[in-house]
Amino acid sequence: MNSNTFGNAFCLTTFGESHGPAVGGIIDGCPAGITIDYSLIMNELKRRKPGQNAIMSMRKEPDEVEFLSGLFEGKTTGAPIAFVIRNKDAKSSDYDNVKDVFRPSHADFTYQMKYGIRDYRGGGRASARTLMPCVVAGAIAKQILEKQNVKIISSVVKIGQKTCQDGFSMKEIEEILSEYKNNNDTVGAVVHCEIQNVPIGLGEPAFCKFHAVLAQAMMNINAAKGFEIGEGFHSAEMCGSECNDLFVNENGRVKASANHSGGVLGGITNGENVSFNVAFKPIPTIMCPQKTVDIQGNEVEYCIEGRHDVCVVPRVLPVVEAMAAMVTLDFLMMK
Amino acid sequence: MNSNTFGNAFCLTTFGESHGPAVGGIIDGCPAGITIDYSLIMNELKRRKPGQNAIMSMRKEPDEVEFLSGLFEGKTTGAPIAFVIRNKDAKSSDYDNVKDVFRPSHADFTYQMKYGIRDYRGGGRASARTLMPCVVAGAIAKQILEKQNVKIISSVVKIGQKTCQDGFSMKEIEEILSEYKNNNDTVGAVVHCEIQNVPIGLGEPAFCKFHAVLAQAMMNINAAKGFEIGEGFHSAEMCGSECNDLFVNENGRVKASANHSGGVLGGITNGENVSFNVAFKPIPTIMCPQKTVDIQGNEVEYCIEGRHDVCVVPRVLPVVEAMAAMVTLDFLMMK
Amino acid sequence: MNSNTFGNAFCLTTFGESHGPAVGGIIDGCPAGITIDYSLIMNELKRRKPGQNAIMSMRKEPDEVEFLSGLFEGKTTGAPIAFVIRNKDAKSSDYDNVKDVFRPSHADFTYQMKYGIRDYRGGGRASARTLMPCVVAGAIAKQILEKQNVKIISSVVKIGQKTCQDGFSMKEIEEILSEYKNNNDTVGAVVHCEIQNVPIGLGEPAFCKFHAVLAQAMMNINAAKGFEIGEGFHSAEMCGSECNDLFVNENGRVKASANHSGGVLGGITNGENVSFNVAFKPIPTIMCPQKTVDIQGNEVEYCIEGRHDVCVVPRVLPVVEAMAAMVTLDFLMMK
Amino acid sequence: MNSNTFGNAFCLTTFGESHGPAVGGIIDGCPAGITIDYSLIMNELKRRKPGQNAIMSMRKEPDEVEFLSGLFEGKTTGAPIAFVIRNKDAKSSDYDNVKDVFRPSHADFTYQMKYGIRDYRGGGRASARTLMPCVVAGAIAKQILEKQNVKIISSVVKIGQKTCQDGFSMKEIEEILSEYKNNNDTVGAVVHCEIQNVPIGLGEPAFCKFHAVLAQAMMNINAAKGFEIGEGFHSAEMCGSECNDLFVNENGRVKASANHSGGVLGGITNGENVSFNVAFKPIPTIMCPQKTVDIQGNEVEYCIEGRHDVCVVPRVLPVVEAMAAMVTLDFLMMK
Repeated sequence: MNSNTFGNAFCLTTFGESHGPAVGGIIDGCPAGITIDYSLIMNELKRRKPGQNAIMSMRKEPDEVEFLSGLFEGKTTGAPIAFVIRNKDAKSSDYDNVKDVFRPSHADFTYQMKYGIRDYRGGGRASARTLMPCVVAGAIAKQILEKQNVKIISSVVKIGQKTCQDGFSMKEIEEILSEYKNNNDTVGAVVHCEIQNVPIGLGEPAFCKFHAVLAQAMMNINAAKGFEIGEGFHSAEMCGSECNDLFVNENGRVKASANHSGGVLGGITNGENVSFNVAFKPIPTIMCPQKTVDIQGNEVEYCIEGRHDVCVVPRVLPVVEAMAAMVTLDFLMMK
Repeated sequence: MNSNTFGNAFCLTTFGESHGPAVGGIIDGCPAGITIDYSLIMNELKRRKPGQNAIMSMRKEPDEVEFLSGLFEGKTTGAPIAFVIRNKDAKSSDYDNVKDVFRPSHADFTYQMKYGIRDYRGGGRASARTLMPCVVAGAIAKQILEKQNVKIISSVVKIGQKTCQDGFSMKEIEEILSEYKNNNDTVGAVVHCEIQNVPIGLGEPAFCKFHAVLAQAMMNINAAKGFEIGEGFHSAEMCGSECNDLFVNENGRVKASANHSGGVLGGITNGENVSFNVAFKPIPTIMCPQKTVDIQGNEVEYCIEGRHDVCVVPRVLPVVEAMAAMVTLDFLMMK
Repeated sequence: MNSNTFGNAFCLTTFGESHGPAVGGIIDGCPAGITIDYSLIMNELKRRKPGQNAIMSMRKEPDEVEFLSGLFEGKTTGAPIAFVIRNKDAKSSDYDNVKDVFRPSHADFTYQMKYGIRDYRGGGRASARTLMPCVVAGAIAKQILEKQNVKIISSVVKIGQKTCQDGFSMKEIEEILSEYKNNNDTVGAVVHCEIQNVPIGLGEPAFCKFHAVLAQAMMNINAAKGFEIGEGFHSAEMCGSECNDLFVNENGRVKASANHSGGVLGGITNGENVSFNVAFKPIPTIMCPQKTVDIQGNEVEYCIEGRHDVCVVPRVLPVVEAMAAMVTLDFLMMK
Repeated sequence: MNSNTFGNAFCLTTFGESHGPAVGGIIDGCPAGITIDYSLIMNELKRRKPGQNAIMSMRKEPDEVEFLSGLFEGKTTGAPIAFVIRNKDAKSSDYDNVKDVFRPSHADFTYQMKYGIRDYRGGGRASARTLMPCVVAGAIAKQILEKQNVKIISSVVKIGQKTCQDGFSMKEIEEILSEYKNNNDTVGAVVHCEIQNVPIGLGEPAFCKFHAVLAQAMMNINAAKGFEIGEGFHSAEMCGSECNDLFVNENGRVKASANHSGGVLGGITNGENVSFNVAFKPIPTIMCPQKTVDIQGNEVEYCIEGRHDVCVVPRVLPVVEAMAAMVTLDFLMMK
């Protein structure tokens, strides 16, 4: 079922485990003749890079991207674009003590049950590091979208009990997370994202509604537990008379006077900004002992060592934007 | 891109508009040798049927399902199962006055912009009636799942400002909705759904996580604006130490001591109940005049006539269950 | 795996068995705003219709197509187009004596082994009647293609030992086949087909080469046993110096001076006519007793009754053209 | 449309150009827990390797395969298996003189027209070298199949005018080809292949018949121009009474007494050997001057330099087997 492939027209297949030789992917369907700006890709990877500040994990990942195909004299040729990011700073020995343990709320147990084998080092295929190929492909998608003036912007609007409508600053995020870090605990968050200047008419009725495909994209990000578009869960509390977006004629153009719907009507973009939220659970790796069960079924206590984040934000922001970029470009190319 | 097709192994393709000759679908991949209980299909359609009580729309839909293929002597043969539900009680004349009008928060505008043509009668392809084929296919999926003891149960946990953890009774729903009906207004709602006794190991890492595919399925239901699994948006407020589900050995079986994750770890079912919520916006058709724009760009006031619901609940419940059944069976067959 | 679905952009899903209530299909992805000429569809079905002359089977199939969706005021809307052809003149009793018998070189045995159940009446899902939905969808595809001047033309170039480079006339076909009919035997044939005025650039490198997808399309037609493009099997006998098509500049346009390649280079159309052959085996239903085995494993002799063709030609011609039309339109829409 | 992806359950996505950094692929869906025998993969690559004898091109390709993911302690984990083969001995300067020339019967022209850009070095994405990832994935598929006793064997049965029912020996092939080499010409060939001990029931009715998918697989191989199964084109010359395979009861098992059908009935394997032929055209690169047109439309004469084969055989044999292995395993896994 190609479950490691995302997209229909602009199509990414990913591979890689946290502590294997490399992560990477193949982009199939990228238009020909595009000049790829390598520095923009590196910028996005840098945003996802750990160790940028006090509260992030300290693993130093060089994260250099090597392109293996699909480019000729700096331009895309229409052939599949393969790329590889080597895993260099992986300390697998950190994971020796979890080799036989099912870490709570991690994928260890389900992978073991599904496959009968698992690469336990650093979470293996379930590691957030496996999202890096999405960031690379998303950075390419963004470049193509920006030529059509489509912009994708995300912010952190909630961490634990604290909310900020306009998005926390990096400094605020750092301050909030350091509290949790001091408690050896982790915390959840909500990311808000907007796709601006989306053309009208993206998305398909029935089973490929724009926001439905977007929901699948976001829920595939590690630790994502909720998705909402426009008013989302709040719309359940509203009346039709307040939730409806009335159409007006704005200088000869049909526009919605409000955007409760989040830029999508009947699964198709209406020209307003696509506006959505993604909820993330706390990172399950906490720095205090937890009870669990090992592979033989023994109840054990374990404590993880190594370098770990307190929260998926801010590092998940470029991932959210990358997935949104791929969804948008995919629908744009199919139009 | 087959956007009217849902599923990989158990695969439904739907067709039909609200006021066309019929709605229906083709199920491709249904296992051979299964005896279909027709009355169970009719039961599910009856739950979705309008006019059952005071607050529902009064359109009388006989909703008889004719099977055209894939069955031989009452059993499935492995060949595609086609079925048709004729549209009999459609009063297209009710829609003459919206022919040239973009109803607010409906799909009229986006369909017109995308296709340059639309069947305006009753919402055409965007009508909730087009979900009936999902209910039929879901009812078949349910029958196959029940042989493996998998059960799917949904309830209404929120209507407007009112919430009920255990789900409202039909009488309660009717009372709440009648208030909104008296105001000529509509209201949103949240549906809770549980998939019980799911086998361990359903779902795929990367881009076909169980809950991601489930999210896409749910967000494709008309008026859905939000999806969450387990603690969902609430998990953003939690610490890792409270959100983590510790594993215990329960009579020789590894179990999660809590189910904050909603039955899925790393995108793969862990044997706990899959537990999720879907938020629906208010039905945009309200019984009072609204300002909007017509197809020529003129600002107009319009008022819809005809028979319309106040809220997607309770009629959406069998649709939510049907989509959940198809997702579950699909993953089960691919395992 | 959606094995009853064909195509990616212009996408047909079929259903139906020879003696079930109906055959039909859903076309997903047909462009919006197209006026469908119903008489052209009926013309194609008429070409496939039995009983047109002395040597064809006498089953009278009215073959009326009812469209159930996707059309509004005579035009396509972009929504899926469902259609149904009722099976009216089916004499299932003709098949009572083959109920438990595996007819030689038919699909009875493999269906029974694969599914454990089969609709034995008239070949069930394996009947050539199940190709009728392809003819309908192909007739629609042809109409769209003809607006772009693409034409698809087929002819019978071989029946048994007799060959005719330019294609046999209907009268010649009838004469040849009547000889075999008199012997209560059947015979194979080769169909030649040309897709004329194909735009340059259709087809994808790697695994979706134009002629590879065309090959799969043709080999899915009942009784097809061989496919070749351009010089085909003859090219194996050639030297490079004779097989190569040299490019010339013809009035400012790059052209191939010959068309040994059959209109495709590297899997992509080069603007020359796509020219291919399909070989069909003799229809396995012969009018004399044959030895075989029944469902219990007993060796038995059986003799089929009913109305049967002597050869797949000429009735298969519109099927070959329909599949070619769908492949061409599909690639054209993906370009 | 994922045109660089092959297969549904056992799924290969390839990348790479002849003179880019590498060729390679990602296998998605390989079962977990399989020990991969690396030497068997190298054996297959060696069979495809050039420079093994006098008549093959002399390019020395080390063809070392580096696996980047999906393996843990020597076993497959169920995660995608990525692999890379570096292009080391590529002399791009050999191609400077064809930079602006459309080589006759090559893909230069169609790639340029389709993409507006092309990597002209060594044929770029259209090079036969891009089939190496298929050989790697096929070698893995073969290993899995052999555990179920399925074997795939191919031979060269025709080169130019010479035929050999049982397949030419390597020595015979070398002798025949050296004649063409001496003439600075190339020649076509026919490869025969058998899939032995195929389980009954592989393949799907309608559009994924076993031999139809096999046909697409084979026709995607560079230079393939024809495919036939069983009697193939010869069946067009036969009567039903000679072509039909009568069923017999052989020691309690239903068997076909002959195998004119080539192991497939109604698109589903019947337990007999799947037996098919693939016709290949002469390699278009010949060592004498040819007239053609350049990218500006000027008629020019050009002569290729470098290292080139006389015929696709014998190097194409492991490719044919690899594609057959992938098709067979894919259907086996979907069963």
